[in-house]
Amino acid sequence: MTLSSSTSAWATLGRPLRLGVIGGGPGSFIGPIHRSAAVLDQRFVILAGVLSSDPARSASHGVALGLDASRAYATVEQMIATEGLRGTGDRIEAVAVMTPNDRHYDDCTLALQAGLHVICDKPLVNTLSQARRLVELVEQTQLAFCLTHNYSGYPMVRQARAMVESGLLGDIRIVQAEYFQGGMALPVEAGELTAKLRWKLDPERSGASLVMGDIGTHAHHLATYVCGSRVARVSADVGAVVPARVFDDYAGILWRFEDGARGSCMVTQAAAGAENNVRIRVHGAKGMLEWQHQEPNYLRYAPLGDSVQILGRGDARLHPVAQRASRIARGHPEGFRESFANLYADFAEAIAARITGMTPDPLHAWSPSVHDGLRGLEFVDAVLASSRNGGAWTACKATS
Amino acid sequence: MTLSSSTSAWATLGRPLRLGVIGGGPGSFIGPIHRSAAVLDQRFVILAGVLSSDPARSASHGVALGLDASRAYATVEQMIATEGLRGTGDRIEAVAVMTPNDRHYDDCTLALQAGLHVICDKPLVNTLSQARRLVELVEQTQLAFCLTHNYSGYPMVRQARAMVESGLLGDIRIVQAEYFQGGMALPVEAGELTAKLRWKLDPERSGASLVMGDIGTHAHHLATYVCGSRVARVSADVGAVVPARVFDDYAGILWRFEDGARGSCMVTQAAAGAENNVRIRVHGAKGMLEWQHQEPNYLRYAPLGDSVQILGRGDARLHPVAQRASRIARGHPEGFRESFANLYADFAEAIAARITGMTPDPLHAWSPSVHDGLRGLEFVDAVLASSRNGGAWTACKATS
Amino acid sequence: MTLSSSTSAWATLGRPLRLGVIGGGPGSFIGPIHRSAAVLDQRFVILAGVLSSDPARSASHGVALGLDASRAYATVEQMIATEGLRGTGDRIEAVAVMTPNDRHYDDCTLALQAGLHVICDKPLVNTLSQARRLVELVEQTQLAFCLTHNYSGYPMVRQARAMVESGLLGDIRIVQAEYFQGGMALPVEAGELTAKLRWKLDPERSGASLVMGDIGTHAHHLATYVCGSRVARVSADVGAVVPARVFDDYAGILWRFEDGARGSCMVTQAAAGAENNVRIRVHGAKGMLEWQHQEPNYLRYAPLGDSVQILGRGDARLHPVAQRASRIARGHPEGFRESFANLYADFAEAIAARITGMTPDPLHAWSPSVHDGLRGLEFVDAVLASSRNGGAWTACKATS
Amino acid sequence: MTLSSSTSAWATLGRPLRLGVIGGGPGSFIGPIHRSAAVLDQRFVILAGVLSSDPARSASHGVALGLDASRAYATVEQMIATEGLRGTGDRIEAVAVMTPNDRHYDDCTLALQAGLHVICDKPLVNTLSQARRLVELVEQTQLAFCLTHNYSGYPMVRQARAMVESGLLGDIRIVQAEYFQGGMALPVEAGELTAKLRWKLDPERSGASLVMGDIGTHAHHLATYVCGSRVARVSADVGAVVPARVFDDYAGILWRFEDGARGSCMVTQAAAGAENNVRIRVHGAKGMLEWQHQEPNYLRYAPLGDSVQILGRGDARLHPVAQRASRIARGHPEGFRESFANLYADFAEAIAARITGMTPDPLHAWSPSVHDGLRGLEFVDAVLASSRNGGAWTACKATS
Repeated sequence: MTLSSSTSAWATLGRPLRLGVIGGGPGSFIGPIHRSAAVLDQRFVILAGVLSSDPARSASHGVALGLDASRAYATVEQMIATEGLRGTGDRIEAVAVMTPNDRHYDDCTLALQAGLHVICDKPLVNTLSQARRLVELVEQTQLAFCLTHNYSGYPMVRQARAMVESGLLGDIRIVQAEYFQGGMALPVEAGELTAKLRWKLDPERSGASLVMGDIGTHAHHLATYVCGSRVARVSADVGAVVPARVFDDYAGILWRFEDGARGSCMVTQAAAGAENNVRIRVHGAKGMLEWQHQEPNYLRYAPLGDSVQILGRGDARLHPVAQRASRIARGHPEGFRESFANLYADFAEAIAARITGMTPDPLHAWSPSVHDGLRGLEFVDAVLASSRNGGAWTACKATS
Repeated sequence: MTLSSSTSAWATLGRPLRLGVIGGGPGSFIGPIHRSAAVLDQRFVILAGVLSSDPARSASHGVALGLDASRAYATVEQMIATEGLRGTGDRIEAVAVMTPNDRHYDDCTLALQAGLHVICDKPLVNTLSQARRLVELVEQTQLAFCLTHNYSGYPMVRQARAMVESGLLGDIRIVQAEYFQGGMALPVEAGELTAKLRWKLDPERSGASLVMGDIGTHAHHLATYVCGSRVARVSADVGAVVPARVFDDYAGILWRFEDGARGSCMVTQAAAGAENNVRIRVHGAKGMLEWQHQEPNYLRYAPLGDSVQILGRGDARLHPVAQRASRIARGHPEGFRESFANLYADFAEAIAARITGMTPDPLHAWSPSVHDGLRGLEFVDAVLASSRNGGAWTACKATS
Repeated sequence: MTLSSSTSAWATLGRPLRLGVIGGGPGSFIGPIHRSAAVLDQRFVILAGVLSSDPARSASHGVALGLDASRAYATVEQMIATEGLRGTGDRIEAVAVMTPNDRHYDDCTLALQAGLHVICDKPLVNTLSQARRLVELVEQTQLAFCLTHNYSGYPMVRQARAMVESGLLGDIRIVQAEYFQGGMALPVEAGELTAKLRWKLDPERSGASLVMGDIGTHAHHLATYVCGSRVARVSADVGAVVPARVFDDYAGILWRFEDGARGSCMVTQAAAGAENNVRIRVHGAKGMLEWQHQEPNYLRYAPLGDSVQILGRGDARLHPVAQRASRIARGHPEGFRESFANLYADFAEAIAARITGMTPDPLHAWSPSVHDGLRGLEFVDAVLASSRNGGAWTACKATS
Repeated sequence: MTLSSSTSAWATLGRPLRLGVIGGGPGSFIGPIHRSAAVLDQRFVILAGVLSSDPARSASHGVALGLDASRAYATVEQMIATEGLRGTGDRIEAVAVMTPNDRHYDDCTLALQAGLHVICDKPLVNTLSQARRLVELVEQTQLAFCLTHNYSGYPMVRQARAMVESGLLGDIRIVQAEYFQGGMALPVEAGELTAKLRWKLDPERSGASLVMGDIGTHAHHLATYVCGSRVARVSADVGAVVPARVFDDYAGILWRFEDGARGSCMVTQAAAGAENNVRIRVHGAKGMLEWQHQEPNYLRYAPLGDSVQILGRGDARLHPVAQRASRIARGHPEGFRESFANLYADFAEAIAARITGMTPDPLHAWSPSVHDGLRGLEFVDAVLASSRNGGAWTACKATS
């Protein structure tokens, strides 16, 4: 574990980055998380925003959140155009997109075309073809693009990745990921719909498979992130466990990784009694790692033939990337908010590196990108194809 | 939960049952467990035995275990013949079979044909056709036949079954079973083989798939026991995760139950860092139940929209079958040994009911039988067929 | 649990409160927590500050933290004088004091005398007489005064208090509080001292008993907060468990509450292997509650004769004060930072109520005040007196 | 950890020891535990018994438990006299005493005087003077005497002791023991009394302080066993937390060990919501150990400055005494019954050593003796004296 921090581009830049937010207005769960995460380490300052798809309300929401009235915009187009008229030391440099899934593609595209760096909530977009076009645009513009698969922002998840990468577990043999939620255990679609449910339950807006877009992509990213390898193929069973439901609320997936590991990925939003149970367990030739969201500050490590170890956030012996992602002393719990803030800290470094022409500090280089988003959509595609095809093993590759 | 104890046939009989043991000699892990479980409640007395497949050693092992020299037999055939010459109030009434898997069929057949009740270690036998013939023989002889899928002997597993049966969880939607062991994480087959490993690693003796026979049948029984329903079909991936291994050490299984529930069954003997992790989790329309072997005295129950509850063994509010299966006060842990003893207590009741012509006490009727053994083999067969067939969904029914 | 939110004074005021910070500069653990907690809900905006006791560095530190250079002051006196020259809609309205303990009295006094509301880190001050004078000043000025015993900011601690208050547990019989840290397990005083250690290890600055001021007051407040009653008397053993140490690193305390409850309070900073273990357990006539800092999002409740319940943060059935203190959905962990932010949210309401002349929203009225600080010092005094006096039971009252 | 098994006296003797039981008849909780523990490893065979203080019922109870009618005795005197008439190869060699506390002294005395080895339930006797006389008698007769403080029979408690003894934790600084039960949380004394409650609630029979005799002695023994040192003095608060109760149900104790360690011992039988919570935590200069009865197969070890380790029963790296005390593979739980059986196995070795004139196998020498019983009573005496004396520190030594 010899990785150490080189000069930080962000520190060299010496100032917070100027951010505009798109989405996350009143009623949003994720909006306040993004905003507090962005400013937690003072690496960003939020100066502009489009807080609603309703232009009339967008401006008032922005002002309510503390934006200057002149920068609480009605539309993304207006924000991009107007900010572009400001001086280079004043205009926003990046946007954070937290709109419903079907808006991601357009919002990100507009931003990238305007030369803005992008941080985008997951899932990246709704279709594989959109994902591919976005990857192309990112490569073409050479702008920074960060995807908020926030579980990879937890220090102990990063420690897990570091331990796998170091070879401590030997070859990885079995990988189990799980994401169980209970929010759809009742037939919520039969009741009055909130604004959030309205878009979530509309496949045009939330994508081909609600459960796969919402949490299947999270479980997939978490597993590939920790293992440092890709899912090669899947055998899956996707559908609804709640009677009469017309959208997917469950996916059972067997997978094989490109390095030969096997295992399962189980996700559902209809598990009565579950709260928000995200888990990852990895068995290698030499030992096991296990992390779960309900005890995020700890990582369970069981070396072959030795006692189980409980590694704790804040321990000075952790990998530097895990240490960097921790702010307060061991034993003082951190949580969900800080997992996002760790991604934002990485993202600030990525942007600052582009601005300064420096190489990003390697301690800030472990965050998900547009490529992870593309792989997530390839995974969803393969899972759905396998399920339609009676569980046949299906490769996770772009169907051209 | 109104089930209550009727008159106990065993109490009416008023004496311990006379048992002979087959297998479980020196070096056996399970032999001492069977023997101490049989006598724990003084419902059996062990009077005879065949302790080794080596006739010369069998007798001496039997004597070493405390058997009278005249009843420490060289072979099963000898035991059956000689015991038959004893008076009806003296000869053994039942046998407990704990030989290697490939011996189960012959040992059980001999015993049943001699009019002896049988308790048999799992898996029942090695092939579906043997299983069917044994079921026929049991039905024909009307003798008691108990299979030691001992996880169903744990009080809190019985409580789980009672709660599902009572409708407390509503319709079952997702069932997850898991059995992870680490004993085969290293390539033990490349080293010197113990006697136990020699038969385990010989497919002629341990069955078509080691992992499925050893622990896959346990996971299957546990899930069907708790849910009170059968597995209808499976999509599976079976093989070896340890390189160069020629026998199965891993199975990933997606399943559908006859009542529509979905889920997964994950088993392996090659999980470095695992000890003996058996878990069952069941999500119904109204809540969740979770039990794991490492905390066997507790059952986690998460009702939809309410606080999680931790039910504890020994609680006076548990279902009578769960209470019956507990011997000591709440907070004093019981374990593996008592799970076997609970099966033996049930089995004593079943035998006594045959002897007395009574109806067995319903508090002792929740134990696995030869039919569970047959269903286990049907499950193994379907899992292996699905895996060979690229994960295609395969029905769990007898292939005639 | 019928308490509901009345009109919020802070919402009526309709703007963030203007805050100055005193202390918490570079190297401080608690400074960043205070600052991010203050702004998390946008109820405060930090506009001024004194970031070091070294006037020369204070200003530069303030600017580094993002303060306007004109409001990054060299001294508290300067901040108060200069801010007082600003317009009433511009000057700071409150200060947050996070200096070493021996500075609290002077800093708070200056602020109160200048008409500023005060939020102060614990322990309140170093001596009982200072505490009494501060209480008098607060009562005289009628300014808001909040003390950051932050464990009372955790939602599940508030839920515990609400459950005790509601009578759910019946009369409280046994109260156990514990705070174990490991930071002083090694003889750190023999090595090179950090700035923080320098003032901590100087009794003139950190108070008569380091362990009691640092964490004994936390444990005392947590217990009295949850139980809603005071400690009447104590029998204690205070000293150093690390050889040759000249300051207190351990206190074992037996206590009796004014309502008759007994129990223990165990605190140490020299527990090798502890991280930051804060626990509270309360047994009443009808049941038990237990909370520990390492699983802050859960509360264990064991009703007499019923199953244990695990209550979770974010549950819609919690007491309104516990719900109010939670920002994100159940299953997404919150932590230490949010416990502080909950106090700051309460404090904003308290200040806004003074400004608007309204009654504070009762959902924001459960935060520690200057009176809790006084009681903490009375407790420390009694504990030290008892220990000096061979464990004799000693009343927790002001020694005039 | 170099201790290894020498030749076992019991193995050399080559046969089970002949045991008589005194007490533990119908309705007894502990009787069945003693009897199944005695025979679990086939080191004892139970041949005689006195199963009730009512001579008429004693014989019938004995027969019901499977004793030969000729050896189901009416009284202890009768058993001793009649067994003495049997041949030396036939008569009982030892007795296990599990009568109410006030009977221990007489029963043990009679047995010792008759040349029988004794295993006795705790507490040893009811008064210090009885304890001293019993110690003298044991020393004089040179018979084996074992006391069933069964928590010391748990493998992971033995592992804890071995780790402390090896110096792995460094000097012990803080010791916390706790035993919380809920059985007396309700005013059971106001209802109809069971036979067990009748003698427990009668101080003439259960001793000067119910809570101290029942569980205080357990907590004391567990702590001194793990630490390998004695309690030097105590400051205590003993009494009743249930209103109007006239016997002790609570004790809060601060203690100092002879090696300087401090800490607390908290015991109660009136903790609503507790089941049978026994815990021990030991902090040394180099780390911490923690064990609790609810997870008896695991031991938590937190080395200073390193990750927490969870040691598991069955691990091949444990101390030989801990390994010896484990019968089944890691991951298969053992419990309360086996903790007793481990004491009985040790006791068989102790008796066999006297019979054969050999030195006992050191792997069987870690069990409590009559001396531990004496120290337990000295502890109770000091605790009660301190409490009566306003918490004054009181030495744990024999008051002559």
